[in-house]
Amino acid sequence: MLVITLGDPGGISYEVFLKSCSLLKKNDIVIGSLSALNYYSSLYSIKIPEWLNIYDIKGKFLIGKDAKSNGEIAYHSLLKGLEIIKKGGFKGLVTLPVSKRAINLAGYKFKGHTDTIAEYFGVKDYGMLMLGRINVYLLTTHIPLKNVHKFIKKDYIVRKVMILHKFFKERFHIEPRIIIMGLNPHSGEGGIIGDEELNEIEPAIRELRRKGVNVLKVVPADTFFLERGFDVIVSMYHDQGMIPFKYTSFFKGVNITIGIPFIRTSPAHGVGYDIAGKGIASHKSTEMAIRLARKICFS
Amino acid sequence: MLVITLGDPGGISYEVFLKSCSLLKKNDIVIGSLSALNYYSSLYSIKIPEWLNIYDIKGKFLIGKDAKSNGEIAYHSLLKGLEIIKKGGFKGLVTLPVSKRAINLAGYKFKGHTDTIAEYFGVKDYGMLMLGRINVYLLTTHIPLKNVHKFIKKDYIVRKVMILHKFFKERFHIEPRIIIMGLNPHSGEGGIIGDEELNEIEPAIRELRRKGVNVLKVVPADTFFLERGFDVIVSMYHDQGMIPFKYTSFFKGVNITIGIPFIRTSPAHGVGYDIAGKGIASHKSTEMAIRLARKICFS
Repeated sequence: MLVITLGDPGGISYEVFLKSCSLLKKNDIVIGSLSALNYYSSLYSIKIPEWLNIYDIKGKFLIGKDAKSNGEIAYHSLLKGLEIIKKGGFKGLVTLPVSKRAINLAGYKFKGHTDTIAEYFGVKDYGMLMLGRINVYLLTTHIPLKNVHKFIKKDYIVRKVMILHKFFKERFHIEPRIIIMGLNPHSGEGGIIGDEELNEIEPAIRELRRKGVNVLKVVPADTFFLERGFDVIVSMYHDQGMIPFKYTSFFKGVNITIGIPFIRTSPAHGVGYDIAGKGIASHKSTEMAIRLARKICFS
Repeated sequence: MLVITLGDPGGISYEVFLKSCSLLKKNDIVIGSLSALNYYSSLYSIKIPEWLNIYDIKGKFLIGKDAKSNGEIAYHSLLKGLEIIKKGGFKGLVTLPVSKRAINLAGYKFKGHTDTIAEYFGVKDYGMLMLGRINVYLLTTHIPLKNVHKFIKKDYIVRKVMILHKFFKERFHIEPRIIIMGLNPHSGEGGIIGDEELNEIEPAIRELRRKGVNVLKVVPADTFFLERGFDVIVSMYHDQGMIPFKYTSFFKGVNITIGIPFIRTSPAHGVGYDIAGKGIASHKSTEMAIRLARKICFS
């Protein structure tokens, strides 16, 4: 039993949902604008299964742009989804892409799904894990680059990586082999270019190892791809991890929030306003998000 | 007529040089440790051409590690190379990899080839351009991540991109089509995640366009690879540009310093201590560096 929030009705979210809806089951619940769903259903000639359990979020939508009305629907779909999860009974949530900008235009402070979900459930220690051809875990997410270094402290790193370790053990039943990207160019080159590697990252790794976590090494971010034999790579900030992740796994990647009391997945791409309404969006990532959520929840 | 500095004798630099030395010409000059060169020549059974013009930098070397003695040879090879270039007559310099750490161990403040060369020639406005399957230009290079944002100011961006524009026009005879990566995740999402895109990068682009530079757009760093029809991408900091560059062009990329009064190229990889002395290093990047230097100098 999954909850699926349809995201922004003005982007490709409804399209990739319709293309994936053969994967749904009768006791799943889908939340979004019924009129938008009907619109895209007839636009793309994809039938909505009669038995589909839809919770309607009423409102207008505009195709292909950041619009207040799109943000309204997207945000309320998400809130309703979280409310349903909180009530219990549903173990997994699949969220389709929203536009942060549209939601902010609609008057809500919104920094992204991950943060909103964590806040809603009062979870402080959570993490954003990307699963694809490579698996990438982000130590920091949607924050300005200039603030990244403030987070890169020994205790923070240890806490965040422990969540990752626990998730792999509990959900995938393996002890993950972890490598960690340095914060600075060339991993600081022994302290010549920044000191966070020596003062924070290395001590964090020693502590993690004492706790039984299998951290293999710190690697310079730009040559990590030469490494073999690891299960997941920890990146210090958004673009450091997302550049190689999206490059290798754009249409086959899943974003999963860990450390929260249920499973939440989403496709790795965004709202795709530029190709909205054209019928050319790939739904592979959405299929993977649905499959993975179901698999982890019920394994 | 090229000057080639052989770099660190303890890494793979001498090996990739020997494997590429069929590309050399009689009036080129090679600078490095003759005893190291003889050692690797016999280790790999690659003959050093008799006519090769070698300037010997005496000293000991240690294979496979950051050693003071390696740093000594590497640094003095570079200095001699710069001295020869300054005297005139040579238009191109190819530098093989050094270890910043080894050179610092030897007692010299060294932040990298690019900065040392610029300082030696009193050049303030220079840039690091990577040519490969994609062409990447770095707005900042070997500085701690936490300092990057201090450089991302309108005037700095304009000045740096003008150097790039000029280089493409003068050396490659084209008006480059340029795209620019945002500094923050998702390019700041319209000011939600950091404000440098709105306050510095966008104004810089408007100014550059007024000056006739063909800047196409700002793109989020993690989806730039979806773009087509550009000649070079400008990245805000080292890893942002080097992650995709090395991923796509590790063994076929060339680093070129622009804005200096001669051509300087180098392979895109590092000293490779981990595979030193094994004979397995690829010399493709070095071959490209030599070919490109010769081609640009004499076209």
